[in-house]
Amino acid sequence: MKAVVFDEKLKLVTDYEKPVPKKGEALVRVTLAGICNTDYEITKGYMGYKGILGHEAVGVVEEINDPDQSLLGKRVVSEISYGCKDPECPWCAEKLYRHCPNRHTLGIWHKDGVFAEYFTMPLEVLFEVPDNVSDEQVVFVEPLAAACEITEQLHIKPFEKVVVLGDGKLGLITALTLNAQNFDVTLVGKHQNKLDIAKAQGVKTSLLQDFPIEKKYDVVVEATGSVSGFETSLALTRPRGVLVLKSTVATGKELNLAPIVIDEITVLGSRCGQFGAALRLLENNRIDFSPLISKVYSIDDAIEAFEKNKEKDVLKVLLKFNG
Amino acid sequence: MKAVVFDEKLKLVTDYEKPVPKKGEALVRVTLAGICNTDYEITKGYMGYKGILGHEAVGVVEEINDPDQSLLGKRVVSEISYGCKDPECPWCAEKLYRHCPNRHTLGIWHKDGVFAEYFTMPLEVLFEVPDNVSDEQVVFVEPLAAACEITEQLHIKPFEKVVVLGDGKLGLITALTLNAQNFDVTLVGKHQNKLDIAKAQGVKTSLLQDFPIEKKYDVVVEATGSVSGFETSLALTRPRGVLVLKSTVATGKELNLAPIVIDEITVLGSRCGQFGAALRLLENNRIDFSPLISKVYSIDDAIEAFEKNKEKDVLKVLLKFNG
Repeated sequence: MKAVVFDEKLKLVTDYEKPVPKKGEALVRVTLAGICNTDYEITKGYMGYKGILGHEAVGVVEEINDPDQSLLGKRVVSEISYGCKDPECPWCAEKLYRHCPNRHTLGIWHKDGVFAEYFTMPLEVLFEVPDNVSDEQVVFVEPLAAACEITEQLHIKPFEKVVVLGDGKLGLITALTLNAQNFDVTLVGKHQNKLDIAKAQGVKTSLLQDFPIEKKYDVVVEATGSVSGFETSLALTRPRGVLVLKSTVATGKELNLAPIVIDEITVLGSRCGQFGAALRLLENNRIDFSPLISKVYSIDDAIEAFEKNKEKDVLKVLLKFNG
Repeated sequence: MKAVVFDEKLKLVTDYEKPVPKKGEALVRVTLAGICNTDYEITKGYMGYKGILGHEAVGVVEEINDPDQSLLGKRVVSEISYGCKDPECPWCAEKLYRHCPNRHTLGIWHKDGVFAEYFTMPLEVLFEVPDNVSDEQVVFVEPLAAACEITEQLHIKPFEKVVVLGDGKLGLITALTLNAQNFDVTLVGKHQNKLDIAKAQGVKTSLLQDFPIEKKYDVVVEATGSVSGFETSLALTRPRGVLVLKSTVATGKELNLAPIVIDEITVLGSRCGQFGAALRLLENNRIDFSPLISKVYSIDDAIEAFEKNKEKDVLKVLLKFNG
């Protein structure tokens, strides 16, 4: 089958062996997939991963190795990790497979990803897509679930003021998601064209240069991935407020953590999320992701799509499969 | 009066003007004071403070500028900050004076400190010392309250495993305090002689070199103040666990914050605390601080005391006043 593989370099291969579903697994034929910045990071060495890339996709179940055949022929999305299923594993018991020490993660950790004609995953992490949700919308379910994760971890009160800093994909999706749940959220970024996407869906927005840096926000979501963004986020968080760290910041320069102690700030690391809440938001049309789609490529042009994804100002690049 | 003043350099002066209590304030004659690492940091430029140093002391109230004279002649300790007292200030309403934007902090911020024969503070931040608690014990009330602050901010469950990393003053006091509240705490450090102080009072201890670095602790208190200590703390915190940041870490090298996101760790900045809980621990003899006292100096030898405080292996240095 066709597959986008990273093994020291990125390549499109056409003769990758089609996977066979193990017991309890389904074989999914991919129809549409999304490139995430993590995929790009992996091509620079992140996690030391080698294999088929990708963890954002929608597809159709073609085969199930299990007596329960209820998903056969259905359109599905997959959570990105599955766990060890050991009955003693507290993470698997809570369905927090992403924290299971023996987890497998699509296209990131010990598991071939979704940038291929087919992938397999256990049934317990597959979700049927509601009929009224298009492939182009549901392909965003994974980053959408990651945004929903914030309210799984943190009780944000209705009167609290939330800032999302950074207007890339991550910041836009986070701001749209919090806004769709009726939180008082302001998206702050450097690109008017990107801010306008959120504004058109009711999010308050501001250019960073026009936004007073005051320690007065209850919750600040750092979505820039830069050290200066982290520092600005700290400078916006009120004493005893919460800075949600969504992007993996590596400091290349001196970083002063003293404000965290002095202002007793909580820095909350937040990663991917469960799909239930995300699918409800999509089913109820609370967010329109189409303005975030920069370009759709055929899987045959995957390498070009990866190049496009690197460009500044590009938001989501999708890969289409001709089933 | 005699006072230890920092103004570009540290000096002992003998003709500092004795302070006059403003309305609502008391004049306290100091009997014993403690040198904190923050005092040392200030002599290196921290906070840009100039004036009388010190924020840990016990003394006797000699004068009160208020109709309420109930503390007159009593032995007292003082919280380190007082607020603006504006009825609209949410921090002052909660007695969280340390977060009031217009606060004054003894020996740190817009307020002369306690390394002098006298200091003044508003009555609402003074606490009478229980008769059965000696000056040598109660002089530790401020760092003790800072350790109690952890359980004000965070609900630690009785079955959760807590590690305190770092066996300096901060780590020792934190471990002793959590142990005194019956938490399952292990103090990890590099100095057997310091660990033994905690061990003698029932704290589990381990040398760092003998302690397996595993992501399995629910709560890890970083009390080393070093970047490597911060990284070790992260490596000990279980996914979704809490890293309590007690010391102000400034990174002089690259610091990778990605584990915070990947493991969804909460980094909780924690500073000073209210005195009520700390005084109860002292009144009930739940901790003995005397093994932490390295040396007691007369105020006349304050400069020498500061030199002593810099020495490795020295714990608490006290300043005694001949009232």
